[in-house]
Amino acid sequence: MTSIYTEVKALPTQGKRALYIPELATVNPEKFGVFISSIDERSLGLGDYQEKFSIQSIAKVLSLCLAYSLVGEKIWDRVGVEPSGTAFNSLLQLEADNGIPRNPFINAGAMVVADVLVSELDRPKEEFLEMVRKISNNPTLNYSSTIAQSEKEVGYRNIALCHFLKSLNNIDNTPDEVLDFYFDLCSIEMTCEELTNLMLFLANNGKSVQNEHQVISVTQSKRINALMQTCGFYDESGEFAFRVGLPGKSGVGGGIIAIYPNKYAVSVWSPMLNEKGNSHKGMEFLERLTTQTQLSIF
Amino acid sequence: MTSIYTEVKALPTQGKRALYIPELATVNPEKFGVFISSIDERSLGLGDYQEKFSIQSIAKVLSLCLAYSLVGEKIWDRVGVEPSGTAFNSLLQLEADNGIPRNPFINAGAMVVADVLVSELDRPKEEFLEMVRKISNNPTLNYSSTIAQSEKEVGYRNIALCHFLKSLNNIDNTPDEVLDFYFDLCSIEMTCEELTNLMLFLANNGKSVQNEHQVISVTQSKRINALMQTCGFYDESGEFAFRVGLPGKSGVGGGIIAIYPNKYAVSVWSPMLNEKGNSHKGMEFLERLTTQTQLSIF
Amino acid sequence: MTSIYTEVKALPTQGKRALYIPELATVNPEKFGVFISSIDERSLGLGDYQEKFSIQSIAKVLSLCLAYSLVGEKIWDRVGVEPSGTAFNSLLQLEADNGIPRNPFINAGAMVVADVLVSELDRPKEEFLEMVRKISNNPTLNYSSTIAQSEKEVGYRNIALCHFLKSLNNIDNTPDEVLDFYFDLCSIEMTCEELTNLMLFLANNGKSVQNEHQVISVTQSKRINALMQTCGFYDESGEFAFRVGLPGKSGVGGGIIAIYPNKYAVSVWSPMLNEKGNSHKGMEFLERLTTQTQLSIF
Amino acid sequence: MTSIYTEVKALPTQGKRALYIPELATVNPEKFGVFISSIDERSLGLGDYQEKFSIQSIAKVLSLCLAYSLVGEKIWDRVGVEPSGTAFNSLLQLEADNGIPRNPFINAGAMVVADVLVSELDRPKEEFLEMVRKISNNPTLNYSSTIAQSEKEVGYRNIALCHFLKSLNNIDNTPDEVLDFYFDLCSIEMTCEELTNLMLFLANNGKSVQNEHQVISVTQSKRINALMQTCGFYDESGEFAFRVGLPGKSGVGGGIIAIYPNKYAVSVWSPMLNEKGNSHKGMEFLERLTTQTQLSIF
Repeated sequence: MTSIYTEVKALPTQGKRALYIPELATVNPEKFGVFISSIDERSLGLGDYQEKFSIQSIAKVLSLCLAYSLVGEKIWDRVGVEPSGTAFNSLLQLEADNGIPRNPFINAGAMVVADVLVSELDRPKEEFLEMVRKISNNPTLNYSSTIAQSEKEVGYRNIALCHFLKSLNNIDNTPDEVLDFYFDLCSIEMTCEELTNLMLFLANNGKSVQNEHQVISVTQSKRINALMQTCGFYDESGEFAFRVGLPGKSGVGGGIIAIYPNKYAVSVWSPMLNEKGNSHKGMEFLERLTTQTQLSIF
Repeated sequence: MTSIYTEVKALPTQGKRALYIPELATVNPEKFGVFISSIDERSLGLGDYQEKFSIQSIAKVLSLCLAYSLVGEKIWDRVGVEPSGTAFNSLLQLEADNGIPRNPFINAGAMVVADVLVSELDRPKEEFLEMVRKISNNPTLNYSSTIAQSEKEVGYRNIALCHFLKSLNNIDNTPDEVLDFYFDLCSIEMTCEELTNLMLFLANNGKSVQNEHQVISVTQSKRINALMQTCGFYDESGEFAFRVGLPGKSGVGGGIIAIYPNKYAVSVWSPMLNEKGNSHKGMEFLERLTTQTQLSIF
Repeated sequence: MTSIYTEVKALPTQGKRALYIPELATVNPEKFGVFISSIDERSLGLGDYQEKFSIQSIAKVLSLCLAYSLVGEKIWDRVGVEPSGTAFNSLLQLEADNGIPRNPFINAGAMVVADVLVSELDRPKEEFLEMVRKISNNPTLNYSSTIAQSEKEVGYRNIALCHFLKSLNNIDNTPDEVLDFYFDLCSIEMTCEELTNLMLFLANNGKSVQNEHQVISVTQSKRINALMQTCGFYDESGEFAFRVGLPGKSGVGGGIIAIYPNKYAVSVWSPMLNEKGNSHKGMEFLERLTTQTQLSIF
Repeated sequence: MTSIYTEVKALPTQGKRALYIPELATVNPEKFGVFISSIDERSLGLGDYQEKFSIQSIAKVLSLCLAYSLVGEKIWDRVGVEPSGTAFNSLLQLEADNGIPRNPFINAGAMVVADVLVSELDRPKEEFLEMVRKISNNPTLNYSSTIAQSEKEVGYRNIALCHFLKSLNNIDNTPDEVLDFYFDLCSIEMTCEELTNLMLFLANNGKSVQNEHQVISVTQSKRINALMQTCGFYDESGEFAFRVGLPGKSGVGGGIIAIYPNKYAVSVWSPMLNEKGNSHKGMEFLERLTTQTQLSIF
């Protein structure tokens, strides 16, 4: 794995940072970290694996896990499990589908999940953070108010989306409450090491490796992995399955988590994104990793 | 597996046959067959597993394998690897994507693959059949001229699609040649037993279990499996991954093949389709099979 | 004209009121008023022509006239002059067209026009009202704060639309300012008599009949009429041209204004709407009027 | 009018010919003819007004008139009267609208009209030509077999469209018959003088000026004019109403006919098209004509 890291590190730095979030636009483009851990807790970190970054959309997996554990299968009445096709027609699709987002990982779907949590929890922000800290045995994990504020100020499209969902009757609370929670969710910061350790329960049939806490059921864990496989990378989900062959989820902060069920979790961070919004070097690293180890699920 | 078969067999017969193909509309709705085989050739058949049916779109996996083995990675210049989203906007998507179909399993993509074969092969129909017979050591496999004729007469939408692709410059041959081959491809008939044995090479890293013939490379085999996982079930691909957790491909004849890489292949046939066009009892059987055996890839 | 009024009055009351605006949902469905006036000020009123109603989208013609007179042809850099096709794909279209709404009478276009006025005027609400009062020599015309408030509370789709336009860089001010002005604009109330007298300048080459004030230039007046002809009735604009043959504009309050250039203006009010959102009896009355008098522009 | 002709003639030659039809791609780009005739048959021709060109889509007005006179209002059960919005989503729209084309002037609509004629007439091609010759008292008008053949060979998109309509059950005859007639219709050739004289009945309430033959009823004539106003110029119909202010119809051969009801008809021909597919100099000439004469209908 070290040689793959060195190879990919040496590749020319390509792509763009997520310019629409001012705070993300200033991250050093050369940052590159990797952390892998097996479910029996053998692990390896390389490069900037101990530097915090904004996990952004990767947090949608965690909010989904929490909502799924709270309300069970009925969550699928309000959000689908299908890939969304091209980004460009998502609003059209939402209207055609009567306000049911195609899956919980596109922004519209994650807002519906956030709305479920706002309804189900007394103190959504605090309780979500408690869950994340509990799974990972890591009480230092936290939101970044700078990042959240930065997104709130320019997040016109997300504000539009949430009001549109409300007009289609798939948001129960006020759009402002849901958006406030949603922007906070996406602002969580952690290192590759922390991210891998946090998400390792998805390689372990839903049970925390750190403290045996069963976060979600075995079936729920398989289903979340299946969803990450088909929907985890926006309109590059097929490409990721095709090239990497593992369930995973990316964020516009340049992070990616990938899961090999019953074996390991691996996270990668490199801030420069390809045109589909996924980490360029992150994709490259994971492709080489599964190709050279012959360890994809397919 | 026998008890699952019995349970699902006893479920009320729901759904519809593929009424738009006259020949398929007359199949007995109660037919139900299953055949599983591991890569070390332990196998089990239940119900109508020795009765022939029209495999329809499942043949698209085979034509893709042949084209992929002939032209390699450059096939992806002409067809994508992403799920297609909803059926309803496929023509719009095609135009927005400059004639590049989203994946090789939607009809537009399968036509582009057929066009590649028409260009690459001297006698496409004969050579395709030879490949299928060779993989499976089964010289009796054949097209059904009745089914093919039935589709040619009423396949207005497919004729439209092929001419539309031609107008977008992604068909090299005449639309008539491509359509003629395409309709024949989809008309191949076989039993569950034959289908499982034929497709078993995809569970065996691309190598025929019957005669050690390496049909496609190991990497190609993984990629075809990944594609089946993300795109194999039209706009129900996410649902299949979610419920069943295996790569697979369905056909409107009511057949489904599913692959557990490095372990087994299983085919199911029951002609009544759910509203997304996939076999109702077939989906049900496979979901129960992977849930009860805990053998999904996730 | 009296006999046509009587005939249409006697037709069964069909359709629905604009239920999404609570204040409009309680209007008496049997109300029906008509007022016609020629440019030489011969006029006739029938039925409830002296009862105030909410003119809603008809106000978009007035805000466009004001913005057009202020910034001239450059307004068309930010909004188009083409019919919008079906309602159902308007958001898709907006994105495909880089945030340029198809015309100034769909909601997105009227918001861009409102944004122009917010930028150009010191006190947009007051100055808009002054213009309306000046054209018509009628100082009593006013906004309805009840209606505006009612829309602000449930106008999720409009809020979504304005933020979406902002994200596409076609709103200069804050969405909140623009929406506040937009909702007020649409809340203006007047009677059929007042509406006809107010809009008569469009039949008079842009000059107020009441006080000779040239509101917009002759060419601008022709162009606004052309726009009403092609875009004045949402996705029923063709139907209105086809059946009635006059430029016009409808509102979800059940009002319609129609213009015969160089001859007359006529307004109709009946709150029950057909499925395209236009007054059922209003359309019916105007069709019979132009058919029986043979006075359409075609 | 002569000075406007001279001005526009002197403008730089911009735009493109209709390259997708090989026969049209070779026309001399400098050709420019104009012919105007009032309903009392005062007329004026300028430039290349006696040279034949391919009227292309302008023929759709004539086929609609014939079908409308044969089957009356029930034609609107199979084709709409609304502008189509952007070209780019026409196939999507067709599917959403259950195979009912938005209007008779987009290709899909003209095919449905052609299908009506194939059903209603014994010898559609001959009888259509007879009507055209009879209206204009001009027995020399004819199809161009070279143009028709040229389109048949490369008209993949139109072939696709007709089969798509058939799959949506809005074509009664075989697609091949309908397409054959459709391509012939569009190939008719005539001069500006012939075109103006032929179409003058639409300025004359449906009655031939040459021989008093009532081609369509007064109401039908008004409705055809209204349709040309809202739908005659593809997705530039609003622009034409806005700039020119007359009902009209363009063709990709570079011809335009415009109608001032009860006054005159004017045709223009210049083969170079703007990006919306309408004659660049033709639009320019007509805009200046109606602006300088103040004779638009608005």
